[in-house]
Amino acid sequence: MNSLDSQQKKELLDRLARIEGQVRGVSRMIEEDRYCVDILAQVNAARNALKKVGLKVLDSHIQGCVRTALREREDGQIIEELLRVIEKFTD
Amino acid sequence: MNSLDSQQKKELLDRLARIEGQVRGVSRMIEEDRYCVDILAQVNAARNALKKVGLKVLDSHIQGCVRTALREREDGQIIEELLRVIEKFTD
Amino acid sequence: MNSLDSQQKKELLDRLARIEGQVRGVSRMIEEDRYCVDILAQVNAARNALKKVGLKVLDSHIQGCVRTALREREDGQIIEELLRVIEKFTD
Amino acid sequence: MNSLDSQQKKELLDRLARIEGQVRGVSRMIEEDRYCVDILAQVNAARNALKKVGLKVLDSHIQGCVRTALREREDGQIIEELLRVIEKFTD
Repeated sequence: MNSLDSQQKKELLDRLARIEGQVRGVSRMIEEDRYCVDILAQVNAARNALKKVGLKVLDSHIQGCVRTALREREDGQIIEELLRVIEKFTD
Repeated sequence: MNSLDSQQKKELLDRLARIEGQVRGVSRMIEEDRYCVDILAQVNAARNALKKVGLKVLDSHIQGCVRTALREREDGQIIEELLRVIEKFTD
Repeated sequence: MNSLDSQQKKELLDRLARIEGQVRGVSRMIEEDRYCVDILAQVNAARNALKKVGLKVLDSHIQGCVRTALREREDGQIIEELLRVIEKFTD
Repeated sequence: MNSLDSQQKKELLDRLARIEGQVRGVSRMIEEDRYCVDILAQVNAARNALKKVGLKVLDSHIQGCVRTALREREDGQIIEELLRVIEKFTD
């Protein structure tokens, strides 16, 4: 169970479809022997797009699961888990 | 033209195929309404795998294009360009 | 007003004193004409130490201000602000 | 031995003096019980300033040591070392 509504899911799935396309684009650039610097620009574009997806999921997690747990005072572990996930995300 | 040999290309294409699978996995997890923290772990795995692809392309670029340009003393722009690409990469 | 208790403040101030020392160490290495790669290692050490300070402040912010605001259902802006701060932190 | 000229050294030392001031500023904000989000903004400012120092040192290293080693074809280890330093820098 997560806290994504159907509008958010659709938006994330659209973004992820574009990222798949970007990753496939990197493969094609390698096969076509394109210049490394251009390949790196495409790799960076995909990484940044994935970061945005991650931030949107994190947003929804905090607005949903974390908020609910805190309001119901059942937040024994959820903040600990949130902090671990933020730490990983900033690596 | 880049400096990837056929062995390096094959390895990168294998990695990129796995990353495409990871991105598709994120989509599936969203469709299946999986827990946000697990989705974020998968997003991070894909981002880290893309970073490794980027470092390998950068490695090959430095060992190839940059080295050749410097040895032939035709490095007017290539170092400037390299520094810009490293800066982007560290964002 | 923040949510750091006196024990957390002391620990953060100790860390920050060490980081000041690391930054001063970078200056000294530059003055002493030390090898760039060694200077970069010291710069990275200071950056990582600052990141840890940031994560500890974020931890305390979430455990304190955010938790309190959510429990009192006064979280109009605090989650928005938290998300912006996490986004900056992951740049 | 590094490749920083006296102008570059002066500029880096000025930047590092400002960063020391920023770190001291974080300590002061903690002592004065300032709001966590404002403390985090100051931590981020110091981290970004340190990153710029690192990029400038890396720039000088590539323009100086790496270029010289490549031109003199004595680059057995210097590229390996450069790649390791870039990898650390992107963590």
